[in-house]
Amino acid sequence: MYPCGLDKLEGIFTPLLVPLDERGRINEPELRRFVSWLIERGVHGLYPNGSTGEFTRFTPEERRRIVQIVADETDGRVPILAGAAEANVNETLAACEAYAGMGARAVAIVAPFYYRLTPESVYAYFAEIARHSPIDLTLYNIPMFASPIDVPTIGRLAAEFPRVVGIKDSSGDVAFMMRMITAVRPKRPDFCFLTGWEAVLVPMIMIGCDGGTHASSNAVPEITRRMYDLARAGNYTEAMKWQFRILELFDAMLNPFEFPDGFRAAAGLRGFNFGRGRQPQTSAQRSDVAALTSVLNCILADFELVDPPAAGCPPRTGRIAEDKVEQVVFDVLRELEKRGVL
Amino acid sequence: MYPCGLDKLEGIFTPLLVPLDERGRINEPELRRFVSWLIERGVHGLYPNGSTGEFTRFTPEERRRIVQIVADETDGRVPILAGAAEANVNETLAACEAYAGMGARAVAIVAPFYYRLTPESVYAYFAEIARHSPIDLTLYNIPMFASPIDVPTIGRLAAEFPRVVGIKDSSGDVAFMMRMITAVRPKRPDFCFLTGWEAVLVPMIMIGCDGGTHASSNAVPEITRRMYDLARAGNYTEAMKWQFRILELFDAMLNPFEFPDGFRAAAGLRGFNFGRGRQPQTSAQRSDVAALTSVLNCILADFELVDPPAAGCPPRTGRIAEDKVEQVVFDVLRELEKRGVL
Amino acid sequence: MYPCGLDKLEGIFTPLLVPLDERGRINEPELRRFVSWLIERGVHGLYPNGSTGEFTRFTPEERRRIVQIVADETDGRVPILAGAAEANVNETLAACEAYAGMGARAVAIVAPFYYRLTPESVYAYFAEIARHSPIDLTLYNIPMFASPIDVPTIGRLAAEFPRVVGIKDSSGDVAFMMRMITAVRPKRPDFCFLTGWEAVLVPMIMIGCDGGTHASSNAVPEITRRMYDLARAGNYTEAMKWQFRILELFDAMLNPFEFPDGFRAAAGLRGFNFGRGRQPQTSAQRSDVAALTSVLNCILADFELVDPPAAGCPPRTGRIAEDKVEQVVFDVLRELEKRGVL
Amino acid sequence: MYPCGLDKLEGIFTPLLVPLDERGRINEPELRRFVSWLIERGVHGLYPNGSTGEFTRFTPEERRRIVQIVADETDGRVPILAGAAEANVNETLAACEAYAGMGARAVAIVAPFYYRLTPESVYAYFAEIARHSPIDLTLYNIPMFASPIDVPTIGRLAAEFPRVVGIKDSSGDVAFMMRMITAVRPKRPDFCFLTGWEAVLVPMIMIGCDGGTHASSNAVPEITRRMYDLARAGNYTEAMKWQFRILELFDAMLNPFEFPDGFRAAAGLRGFNFGRGRQPQTSAQRSDVAALTSVLNCILADFELVDPPAAGCPPRTGRIAEDKVEQVVFDVLRELEKRGVL
Repeated sequence: MYPCGLDKLEGIFTPLLVPLDERGRINEPELRRFVSWLIERGVHGLYPNGSTGEFTRFTPEERRRIVQIVADETDGRVPILAGAAEANVNETLAACEAYAGMGARAVAIVAPFYYRLTPESVYAYFAEIARHSPIDLTLYNIPMFASPIDVPTIGRLAAEFPRVVGIKDSSGDVAFMMRMITAVRPKRPDFCFLTGWEAVLVPMIMIGCDGGTHASSNAVPEITRRMYDLARAGNYTEAMKWQFRILELFDAMLNPFEFPDGFRAAAGLRGFNFGRGRQPQTSAQRSDVAALTSVLNCILADFELVDPPAAGCPPRTGRIAEDKVEQVVFDVLRELEKRGVL
Repeated sequence: MYPCGLDKLEGIFTPLLVPLDERGRINEPELRRFVSWLIERGVHGLYPNGSTGEFTRFTPEERRRIVQIVADETDGRVPILAGAAEANVNETLAACEAYAGMGARAVAIVAPFYYRLTPESVYAYFAEIARHSPIDLTLYNIPMFASPIDVPTIGRLAAEFPRVVGIKDSSGDVAFMMRMITAVRPKRPDFCFLTGWEAVLVPMIMIGCDGGTHASSNAVPEITRRMYDLARAGNYTEAMKWQFRILELFDAMLNPFEFPDGFRAAAGLRGFNFGRGRQPQTSAQRSDVAALTSVLNCILADFELVDPPAAGCPPRTGRIAEDKVEQVVFDVLRELEKRGVL
Repeated sequence: MYPCGLDKLEGIFTPLLVPLDERGRINEPELRRFVSWLIERGVHGLYPNGSTGEFTRFTPEERRRIVQIVADETDGRVPILAGAAEANVNETLAACEAYAGMGARAVAIVAPFYYRLTPESVYAYFAEIARHSPIDLTLYNIPMFASPIDVPTIGRLAAEFPRVVGIKDSSGDVAFMMRMITAVRPKRPDFCFLTGWEAVLVPMIMIGCDGGTHASSNAVPEITRRMYDLARAGNYTEAMKWQFRILELFDAMLNPFEFPDGFRAAAGLRGFNFGRGRQPQTSAQRSDVAALTSVLNCILADFELVDPPAAGCPPRTGRIAEDKVEQVVFDVLRELEKRGVL
Repeated sequence: MYPCGLDKLEGIFTPLLVPLDERGRINEPELRRFVSWLIERGVHGLYPNGSTGEFTRFTPEERRRIVQIVADETDGRVPILAGAAEANVNETLAACEAYAGMGARAVAIVAPFYYRLTPESVYAYFAEIARHSPIDLTLYNIPMFASPIDVPTIGRLAAEFPRVVGIKDSSGDVAFMMRMITAVRPKRPDFCFLTGWEAVLVPMIMIGCDGGTHASSNAVPEITRRMYDLARAGNYTEAMKWQFRILELFDAMLNPFEFPDGFRAAAGLRGFNFGRGRQPQTSAQRSDVAALTSVLNCILADFELVDPPAAGCPPRTGRIAEDKVEQVVFDVLRELEKRGVL
């Protein structure tokens, strides 16, 4: 109903996980294979260097190389929204220029993090970038990790800078999304609203969002796409069935793991080797990830996207109780071990 | 689609404001007039002694009297959900008994507040009440004011106690509501899910909620009802138009006031005298409330529910900017006054 | 160094636990015995109806009765600071009047709770009470449970109302205490500053506090008093030795229990029967309390205030590791039981 | 009393501000002049690449260059604690190696930020670095900006890794510091405890801290040093006089500014040109900084460290009210301007 962008930033954008090789370096062949696999499964666009892509754990050079590989492999099949936040405005603008040169459709800039800035400073930061960027940019609001971008700030930036073409919001707050839409759409009907919280994608589409950048689409791109299509077609009853199932998967990938390890584990079950992440793990954590990955395997098998684990899955009626007994026992043993009792 | 309750706790329940007389006592005639006015405007039920009803600011005797007046005036026209939280389990059970005797359909019990309890203690508290209550009860989750009730706790209580027939959740978190529904409905298809956050009523209905207890329905019962009916009928496009308008009103009643003074001010504009609240105000605050009430008056006039203020309303196109200039000037003067500059 | 009050509100005030009988009623004989025992062990004053006294879990009548018993038993031996917060300003003023009549030295009023009020409203609330109170009052700041009282508000109230004679602050924030002192002492050298956070009593005395109201003094009045005396005498080296030991005890009473159950358990070990609290417990919680009480017993035995448990205490060198093994094993078993594995 | 380190990491370490030239590049001559000026005024050590040094706003190459300049200018006169956190463990270890080569005494590693990690992951992160670092390292706990490091994690790291020689804690929580000391000192009497919160430096020294890394020492190194010396000598009465004055200055530098702009402004008043920071400012913010800097000027003039502003300072008795009128008027005008009224 609202035309979001000329060359639209709507639909499902995958915030790409980055496969690493056994020495922790970017695994280029696997990344290329992953990019093409996602495009073939129907995602509308790719979003390298997002939070799911662990942009903060790569060097500036590596971040550029990731976008280069993705752009090259994509070869124009889908638009690229490139995460371009760097240490400061000058470095960020240099990245914007580089990504424009690589053919990115737009860049996404997370609000300043580490320091928690006031709205006035968040405005000043984005305004300075918007004034000089050679490429369209989307704001990226993720208040659990970075300085929050409030509604008046979004309104000011949208009104003053045509280069600011959208916002990705990962708060998951439906009312906040409505407030942003109210503040911006009358002045900027082309402005794009993307949610980063797939737990509520269908409600977000219903209230007027244009799409989402969803970590889950690394693991189940077909399902995320289907849910989006059903919601955009107004078939909310059917869309909500998938929404409830995605929520179970999302919670299972999000809560018991360090982010984004659960998404890495699930996407790995689709046939990719993501390697170990760059954040070190204790041996207890490694055992934990193994146990939790079995649970993910059973959920994905329910979607009929992968085979169930060799050992089989517990019956799915008393679902929550049953399929976590294995994990409970493990948790207890780990706790005993940690406290030196075993 | 889901049968919520036998004698259903679904639809819009108004968490009643309590009119006070010039000496701060319950204004019984005005409360009676207000109750009947709400019922005539279509609310499905009444909810005395909620947070909007400032239950903590009344004595135990007053809380009982409020329910008595409401029950008497209602005379069976709509079901009553009576807030029954008292100082401890024994007192609460005595209130449950009293409200059962007055004909309440069910009671609502807020989670323990002041002390922030663990989930295990929240469970123990509700379990003890559910074991002995002579009347159905709904849990009341309002994490900004009271100990949070988490999903496993809700699941345990719903599974073990048939007396626990529903939950009212005021978190406004759509994903949380979905998690509760997932945890409870398979075992208790009769369980009622009510949202207390009208900012997202339509999305909440869409994902499967049964209704809401909305402070806004004190001021605009017709609109809340209409929004609910449209959403239940699956007419989300039309429902969302009202949802966006309710959100503007809700924010204008909620944010610049102390809760629930904005709701009292708006409901007062419908022709009721609520008197001064029991929380004292400085003279600066009283001027502030007067200015903000003018803004509410203009919003309600837009709904064609009241006449615009005598001085007229600013043009409504550039709405947010325009109709707050008055307030800005006031704010500045107040600030100067507060700091002793004027 | 600073004369705090005429009839001083300085030193250690015990926020009294309330013994209950087997039916959950106030156990008057035990309360009387406890009051006299505390006075004999050197506390400077008594503070009934505080957070430790679970004032919110008693009825208004019970709260009055508690103060009456305490006043009667104390019989002028030490000053009484009576918690007087009730449902609203009128009820609170009536309580103030009653407590004045009972001979209380002053009342303590916690900031409004449940609703989180702005500083302006917190000011309005206390100003209204201060204007009409027949007895001196102290502000009670406990931001984890009630609306925070900020420094400018404290400054305004201290400057305008002679009836406001002090503040009890339970934030435990040493810098915040210094900010209050800076804002108030130049204008009100008689104003009393009491900390409610015994974890940092010695540093608080060092920076200029007049005393404290400490839940721990229910269990170890002699130690709290000694620590206070040493600090007031400027013997910080010796005072800090006790401070570190009190911190271990405080954390053991505070963290693993629901507040104030750990303090009840420890005070019970001194020979009093506090009965079960009014907040219900699951059977898992009751076992937990038993195990944790053994740990408290060992710590109190180290102070040579009670005998060690019959089963003995683990060796105390590797203290933290050793004396919690028992608890760890219990925790694990409870967890297994809770999850239905055992 | 406790020997902290062989080559001690005790006393006042200045977390260095970095002067920038008019093009936003590191101003090497000014940085050298600043380093020598600080050493001459008595700070015990220098801490480049801390939060005050805005390490996140520099590139990896710039961070190395800053340490190189500081090491070169210091030339062994005082120990250097170099902030070495980089994008991931490998990059951090490379920085550790580089700083060891430059002669740093130790490195400081902030806990992982952006993502909020669990204690187990925080442990894994530091353990991996400690296992391979060629130089001693201190943990850096700053929970308002980075993943918190809890007491058990500190205990584990201190017990297992001799390379971990201390912690800098910027929480300002005195009880937390005591808990760390209790958990670590029995096993590691050489472990160094530094506070990063100068608002409570004297209490921290009193309870057993070894020193501090204080942003304020960029502006008033003589005073921070004097306060430290008095406290270490046990002269708390005198030390607290300075502590109260430092608190006023600290709050004036911290609260109304974006961090660390207030510290930059105050240090600039001592005769250094720090240039504009890398975080952009609106013109309203620039005016604001100018007005606030006048207030800082007056406070520093009170310390007799700088001349008062040409326009003079308001009388200092009614300090808080008086010296902010200028700022109030400014604030109001700015607010009016921002809202388009002027």
